[in-house]
Amino acid sequence: MSKDKVDIFDTTLRDGEQVPGCKLETKQKLTIAERLDNLGVDIIEAGFPVSSPGDFKSVSEIGKLVKNAAVCGLTRAVKKDIEVAAEALKYAKRPRIHTGIGTSDSHIKHKFNSNREAIIERAVEAVAYAKTFVEDVEFYAEDAGRTDNEFLARVCSAVVKAGATVLNIPDTTGYCLPEEYGAKIKYLKENVKDIHKATLSCHCHNDLGLATANSIAGAINGARQIECTINGIGERAGNTSLEEVVMVLRQHPTLNLDTNINSKLLYNTSQMVSQEMGMMVQPNKAIVGANAFAHSSGIHQDGVIKNRETYEIIDPADVGVNASSIVLTARSGRAALAYRAKLVGYELTKLQLDEVYQEFLKYADNKKEVFDEDIHEIIDSSAINIQSVP
Amino acid sequence: MSKDKVDIFDTTLRDGEQVPGCKLETKQKLTIAERLDNLGVDIIEAGFPVSSPGDFKSVSEIGKLVKNAAVCGLTRAVKKDIEVAAEALKYAKRPRIHTGIGTSDSHIKHKFNSNREAIIERAVEAVAYAKTFVEDVEFYAEDAGRTDNEFLARVCSAVVKAGATVLNIPDTTGYCLPEEYGAKIKYLKENVKDIHKATLSCHCHNDLGLATANSIAGAINGARQIECTINGIGERAGNTSLEEVVMVLRQHPTLNLDTNINSKLLYNTSQMVSQEMGMMVQPNKAIVGANAFAHSSGIHQDGVIKNRETYEIIDPADVGVNASSIVLTARSGRAALAYRAKLVGYELTKLQLDEVYQEFLKYADNKKEVFDEDIHEIIDSSAINIQSVP
Repeated sequence: MSKDKVDIFDTTLRDGEQVPGCKLETKQKLTIAERLDNLGVDIIEAGFPVSSPGDFKSVSEIGKLVKNAAVCGLTRAVKKDIEVAAEALKYAKRPRIHTGIGTSDSHIKHKFNSNREAIIERAVEAVAYAKTFVEDVEFYAEDAGRTDNEFLARVCSAVVKAGATVLNIPDTTGYCLPEEYGAKIKYLKENVKDIHKATLSCHCHNDLGLATANSIAGAINGARQIECTINGIGERAGNTSLEEVVMVLRQHPTLNLDTNINSKLLYNTSQMVSQEMGMMVQPNKAIVGANAFAHSSGIHQDGVIKNRETYEIIDPADVGVNASSIVLTARSGRAALAYRAKLVGYELTKLQLDEVYQEFLKYADNKKEVFDEDIHEIIDSSAINIQSVP
Repeated sequence: MSKDKVDIFDTTLRDGEQVPGCKLETKQKLTIAERLDNLGVDIIEAGFPVSSPGDFKSVSEIGKLVKNAAVCGLTRAVKKDIEVAAEALKYAKRPRIHTGIGTSDSHIKHKFNSNREAIIERAVEAVAYAKTFVEDVEFYAEDAGRTDNEFLARVCSAVVKAGATVLNIPDTTGYCLPEEYGAKIKYLKENVKDIHKATLSCHCHNDLGLATANSIAGAINGARQIECTINGIGERAGNTSLEEVVMVLRQHPTLNLDTNINSKLLYNTSQMVSQEMGMMVQPNKAIVGANAFAHSSGIHQDGVIKNRETYEIIDPADVGVNASSIVLTARSGRAALAYRAKLVGYELTKLQLDEVYQEFLKYADNKKEVFDEDIHEIIDSSAINIQSVP
């Protein structure tokens, strides 16, 4: 049975770039856009053209450059925004305008000082106007996570009628629980009129650490686009991590969902974005952190050495990392020491290992990490008589 | 209706410390343990006493120091381990021994070269032996995430009969989806004999970015202990983040679950652990990242200034962060500029703001972030005539 395709909508260059201090030059954006295109993302959200002359230029240049992915520009539900976005996208092979408005009571009241009917009217006008410029129009219902489902379905039905091809359901504040977000997508799938004419899209924020789980819950319940960024960067706690959702789907074949992403480029792309934006990736970041495939505890190392699948479910090579690195510390067990000793040329017997291990523990207790060169010293200090074999 | 309490089992000093290069001195461990006790964690897993003389000492000293939390030591299902752990815990006011064994077919076959019946026997023996030293014995079924539920329930029933007070169900490889992990906990709640005598515990790893969601799914389905670390540190992609699960429960009162954590200490504790271990926290880390409460895009800033709850669901003060910081970049809107200009002494009219904003955009397009001192220069460069009001 062939898998359902989930589109990957990368917003590293738009929502990701909204990180304080991460603004990119057009040249940097082009470098990243080209890589995203090679990675296999389906849509690149390139910027918010009306926001500044620099952003307009970036969107325009990305539109000229990108070969495969659709190129998307963000707008508010404002005519001027839409006109400027259309102008910026005029060179794109597959242009998409992304327009929308807040739909939660909190946004309608505090941000727009408006009411529900007026919001639907503005939403429909914006989509219809965008449609005069491009065929592919995505609508976002900002703060959908906190929007009453029945009203949200009304908004969605109205914009689908006006020509929206994608319905973006953002959990803008990162508040939803996976069950709740999944149920929202399911409700829309079942209650939006002519939903077969549009793709439901998950756009989740990570304020409570749930963005990946929410996006997957959305896909399980019928969404066929996930909006995400490399390394999960973005405002506040960031957006859904592209690398995480891609690998969750790939590691769970029974979900019967997959993306077009060439996962072997994930690690290098993560490094490139981190460097260009000056946004570091913590060592314990899932999939792309420096430690994601390192093992230091003895119990785990023993297992990994016996059979990689005992502890690792992802083959590091699948995300572009060359090998599991086995790090020696005072928590490491005999198996890891023996493994590393063997790599540097010592074949230890059980009894020899017992001796060397005691010496290793004393040594490791004083040192954060034990390197290959230390192993020679440890073996020299222990009571055994062994020569390394070159 | 009073909320159900979920115990927080902090393993920063055991599973967290297994990070390559993060080994702590006993003195550092004591500093962190004291803070964890003040933070309100229910159990501190202090180390793996048999693993090295340094770790034994740390567990022993932490047992003497900690006033409120239970202090726990890890062991394998090995007599020697259990004896050494009991010795290390002899000064603790509330000692707990944490023993266990792998239960998945992969672990039974590759790690132990054993069979299911022999594994149950070893598990029961270990729990019964630990019980001769302490009242509070937690059992871990390693790789429970990939263990067949029916066999897992048999193992759990057997160890509860042997006296286990807590059943730890680790998703050792970070493989489970939230629905699947929640269903596993539910199955155990319904099928383990005399389950009312023991607490089910979630121990999740973040390899696919799902640790927080899995732990919450476990709690929703009946687990009443969550094992976690500060900043989510730990081997590979780390463990469940303490700060995330605590705030998910607090922000979702309808779940009717809460912890004893004093959330106002979360940010400082995160900083302390990051510094002591030399493990940096990425800016977009949920709850405790530097940007977790910063807003830089115009649309968002406008909303936040009008009403904080439009975009933020957590009051930064609740996790010990003093104020939302409003960062100015080329993505910032007029409202943010006006807000910051006001803070440095300029009350701009609508027309003045239009002028200054154009100047600001040119300035901001060339600069990653605009600071207070830049605002004076921007206003001086613009065509308006305004003096700052001290």
